[in-house]
Amino acid sequence: MIIKVGGAAGIDYDFLCEDIATLWQENKSLVLVHGGSSFTDELSRKLDHPPRFVTSVSGIQSRFTDRETLEIFEMAYCGKMNKGIVERLQRLEVNAVGLSGLDGRIWEGPRKTTLKIVENGKRKVLRGDHTGRVERVNINLIEMLLENGYLPVLTPPAASFDGEAINVDGDRAAAVLGAALKADTVLFLSNVPGLLKDVEDEKSLIKKLCLKDLESAKNDIARGRMKKKVMGAGEAIEAGVGRCIFGDARIPQPVRSALEGRGTVIERG
Amino acid sequence: MIIKVGGAAGIDYDFLCEDIATLWQENKSLVLVHGGSSFTDELSRKLDHPPRFVTSVSGIQSRFTDRETLEIFEMAYCGKMNKGIVERLQRLEVNAVGLSGLDGRIWEGPRKTTLKIVENGKRKVLRGDHTGRVERVNINLIEMLLENGYLPVLTPPAASFDGEAINVDGDRAAAVLGAALKADTVLFLSNVPGLLKDVEDEKSLIKKLCLKDLESAKNDIARGRMKKKVMGAGEAIEAGVGRCIFGDARIPQPVRSALEGRGTVIERG
Repeated sequence: MIIKVGGAAGIDYDFLCEDIATLWQENKSLVLVHGGSSFTDELSRKLDHPPRFVTSVSGIQSRFTDRETLEIFEMAYCGKMNKGIVERLQRLEVNAVGLSGLDGRIWEGPRKTTLKIVENGKRKVLRGDHTGRVERVNINLIEMLLENGYLPVLTPPAASFDGEAINVDGDRAAAVLGAALKADTVLFLSNVPGLLKDVEDEKSLIKKLCLKDLESAKNDIARGRMKKKVMGAGEAIEAGVGRCIFGDARIPQPVRSALEGRGTVIERG
Repeated sequence: MIIKVGGAAGIDYDFLCEDIATLWQENKSLVLVHGGSSFTDELSRKLDHPPRFVTSVSGIQSRFTDRETLEIFEMAYCGKMNKGIVERLQRLEVNAVGLSGLDGRIWEGPRKTTLKIVENGKRKVLRGDHTGRVERVNINLIEMLLENGYLPVLTPPAASFDGEAINVDGDRAAAVLGAALKADTVLFLSNVPGLLKDVEDEKSLIKKLCLKDLESAKNDIARGRMKKKVMGAGEAIEAGVGRCIFGDARIPQPVRSALEGRGTVIERG
């Protein structure tokens, strides 16, 4: 099972790590993937290099990642967030190992140096971007860790095919990892209960979706970051993952709750 | 061979990584340990939590590490420094894997929560310190990486016996690691040519030292951080490491130069 937890405000990492520790002691094979966007924003502001979000010509929002932003991103994701999670798990006697996708080139893909964006209604080209997309997973290191009793805690950046650090979308990277490891379940935990029909109403949760509904769910229902989760879930199931679940990371036992049916379950058929 | 590189100003990580890449392609078995003190100081100041250095009652200087400092330390060491070095090596086609001593509890030891210091001539007790000392090395993970063609890039913090992150001295941690791995050589690279008789005169380099000279070298010659390197070297050789070398990390081919005799060589006899 792959558990992807976001980096948005409201997520409770103590609840998450306690739940993971119980599952781990029951000999579940787990990989944890995490984000860190909210803390990255905070750190960027404190370091006088505020985040710049741009909208691509195809309508997808992302963080413009110049070299300075990339290093702030690494401090937040690989430093504070990753080691904070590893420490929580180690305190609970789970032998966690924190890695980025750059380490051992676990996540590899092409780098995009220019971004075509729309700003104030005008098309623009931004250069010096350090982003990319995961196309290949080198599972050797992850499998070696799992076989030897270590819990891998994985975070962006990934490696470009030339070995550069690239900012990649964590949800889609988790989906590709799930496919490469032939995971039964990829669980996406964030600060909402799942996919909502009405983003203002937490009671409008969609309980089940199948693969053929995903395209319209992405276009008509999902908002903001949820779009990438829906895309990631579709890609994962296409590639052979059993099911994906969108669950709530703000509650006690977030993993168990999602597995027991709170949240949105996405299956092939 | 263990290569420990400091985090002081003037160190050239590009030179270092190029040199390591050549040695790696010659099938040398290497572990790289690094610091990050200078960037940690800079980041602490930018984040309005300036570093506080204290002098213990036994005369050793160290960084007072409250929780906030620990997290800044992790951002600097495990985020920017570690991933920057891994990226340089990956760009040179060395399959590097960056880890802290917390990951897989590679470095373990007791935490010290209170510090007895001398400030303005007065004795004081500081509480809430997150520091410690490496007493145990779990080499399983490091050996697994080396056997599978990965170059481990290791940095503090370490893990307390309770799994907390603790700030430890990187030089002494590298020495303990060298002893655990029964390394032939532990190389300490920093921003000076080696141990100097006169710290103002780079030509006063001491070329050779043996174990019995170390105690007086530590007390009478070494200044500041060099004291800990001398202590680390002594501990490493006592524990079975073949030799330690103090070399210059500001020059091209810093590793090769040190191995060829530039620097201070410390041996048992």
